[in-house]
Amino acid sequence: MTGERQLIKKIKDWTAGPVGAGATGAGAGNMIGDDCAVLPGQRLVSSDMLVEDRHFSLAYTDFESLGWKSCAVNLSDIAAMAGRPRYLTLCLSLPSYISEGDLQSFYQGFNQCAREHGAEVVGGDLSGGDKFVIAVTVIGEAHEKGLLKRSGAQVGDIVLATGNFGASALGLKLLQAGQNDQATIKMDRGKLALTAHRRPLPRLCEAFALVRQIGSRGALMDASDGLADALFQISEASAVSMKVNVEQIPIDPDMRALALALDLDPVRLALYGGEDYELVACADSGSIDFLEAHFPFVPIGRVVAQDEPGKPTVELVSFEGADSGNQAFVDLSNCYQHFW
Amino acid sequence: MTGERQLIKKIKDWTAGPVGAGATGAGAGNMIGDDCAVLPGQRLVSSDMLVEDRHFSLAYTDFESLGWKSCAVNLSDIAAMAGRPRYLTLCLSLPSYISEGDLQSFYQGFNQCAREHGAEVVGGDLSGGDKFVIAVTVIGEAHEKGLLKRSGAQVGDIVLATGNFGASALGLKLLQAGQNDQATIKMDRGKLALTAHRRPLPRLCEAFALVRQIGSRGALMDASDGLADALFQISEASAVSMKVNVEQIPIDPDMRALALALDLDPVRLALYGGEDYELVACADSGSIDFLEAHFPFVPIGRVVAQDEPGKPTVELVSFEGADSGNQAFVDLSNCYQHFW
Repeated sequence: MTGERQLIKKIKDWTAGPVGAGATGAGAGNMIGDDCAVLPGQRLVSSDMLVEDRHFSLAYTDFESLGWKSCAVNLSDIAAMAGRPRYLTLCLSLPSYISEGDLQSFYQGFNQCAREHGAEVVGGDLSGGDKFVIAVTVIGEAHEKGLLKRSGAQVGDIVLATGNFGASALGLKLLQAGQNDQATIKMDRGKLALTAHRRPLPRLCEAFALVRQIGSRGALMDASDGLADALFQISEASAVSMKVNVEQIPIDPDMRALALALDLDPVRLALYGGEDYELVACADSGSIDFLEAHFPFVPIGRVVAQDEPGKPTVELVSFEGADSGNQAFVDLSNCYQHFW
Repeated sequence: MTGERQLIKKIKDWTAGPVGAGATGAGAGNMIGDDCAVLPGQRLVSSDMLVEDRHFSLAYTDFESLGWKSCAVNLSDIAAMAGRPRYLTLCLSLPSYISEGDLQSFYQGFNQCAREHGAEVVGGDLSGGDKFVIAVTVIGEAHEKGLLKRSGAQVGDIVLATGNFGASALGLKLLQAGQNDQATIKMDRGKLALTAHRRPLPRLCEAFALVRQIGSRGALMDASDGLADALFQISEASAVSMKVNVEQIPIDPDMRALALALDLDPVRLALYGGEDYELVACADSGSIDFLEAHFPFVPIGRVVAQDEPGKPTVELVSFEGADSGNQAFVDLSNCYQHFW
């Protein structure tokens, strides 16, 4: 992870241009900084590449779900800045073992996800290849009420999150353990985890509700690499630290029970599992009553000043441990995966 | 080729949306039809994927040239509609045998090509992978004087082309035959062919000159899959046929001599070799004097009515063979490659 981030910083230098170039975040914009590059005219663009056996396995993914997810994770990059996705391009490298029927299922899943969220496929490319490789670019527009970035958190803000953390990682663990549909479909808990992993929902509606309430005064990103990573990225970009109450992290009771039944720590899955595509936001405390009352953002902590400037920390606190004197911080080396 | 085109037509169906969607060419727009999809606001977008050992070989391509070419072929898609390229995203799948130095050379070549043509890298993604895979998206704007498409040719138009056809295919043949830099650098003819293959120039300047003169009244595309393919694609999209004089096809005298020395037919290389990224246009005959006088478009034929509606043909004529009674037509099954 550290090596990858250092490499991306170098790429930013290698692609740097003359002062005054049009796009903010120019020079590998969406590789570092925010989830999308911001172009003039408040347009947003982001690109992702997904590689077989690195980001997904055809052994336990059906093509329609893979198509859906390939679209959803890109729409989530637009949601992460509270934007509206509009257009998608889709390039595929196709190994010979992918049939036309597989491809049709893939496109149907992709297209369904796009249409359901107001976007359309406008172009792309096909190539042969040894592995199935999926490259998606999404073009969107900033919301008319504003643009939310990772760098907008301020000391005193409340930290908020949507959703159900850890479910996707739990679904992946079930799949990797060979507990496929046949075994788990009967078990509602397992089905929920599988669906969370295979067909994540981009949190566009939640992002729009947030930006309508708070405009550009706040911070936002998606938790694609895990909640811990998102909290840390916002802290770093905003030059703040955070205190997060682990008991307030939204984890579905069924997911908690399933994790415990599998001898897994549900809080670790939530913090470090990744691929949940939930949103993490920071907003002025005056907005909290409205945000809590109207849609599923829950407060999970607060933004504090950095003890040492330039050294963001995310402290984990709990009611139980509040008086124990033991301090715990998120540690990104615990992340299970940094795939998508 | 036919199989690929049929598949792309199916993809267009699979990704079709409700009537009234915003983008023209929606549903896999730039996969079929024009080189770019046209978005509202006269914006253009196109995506390409390049796969190691399918579109290029690291055995005879240096990373800086590969970076340049990966950018150039995408800028050429914008030139093919006379647009102005603005923003690029670049996703890479990186096998372990690619060093940081290789990657730096690649980005430098890519960035140099982008900057020299008024575009900038704004985002992208990195992934591991077994092969080097390059996915590029370019976003541009239509020229203020108009947008030229494949479908704009009319009976009576003159067919025009820029450049030097067959040089890229000749360069590839030299490389495949193991005649690398050391052997060919001393030979200017070989060097020209290698440069044409490794560092093609997107014909943006030529496209702007054309659109300033003719506006939207005409047809344009790039000849990335060979001159024969471009002539056929324009004919099909415009519901016309063409007669092309093979003696007027622009082929550099040195390239002609080099091809003959290698026992290759220079006209076949020009028609079917591909990867030249020259432009092919159709324009009203009234514009020809200006176009010929001011920049390197040369007339190579004329647009005629289809003998049988729905059956475009491209007839090859020559002064020598004009009275022989033997009709020759371009045959796309002769294409050497349909890579980029």
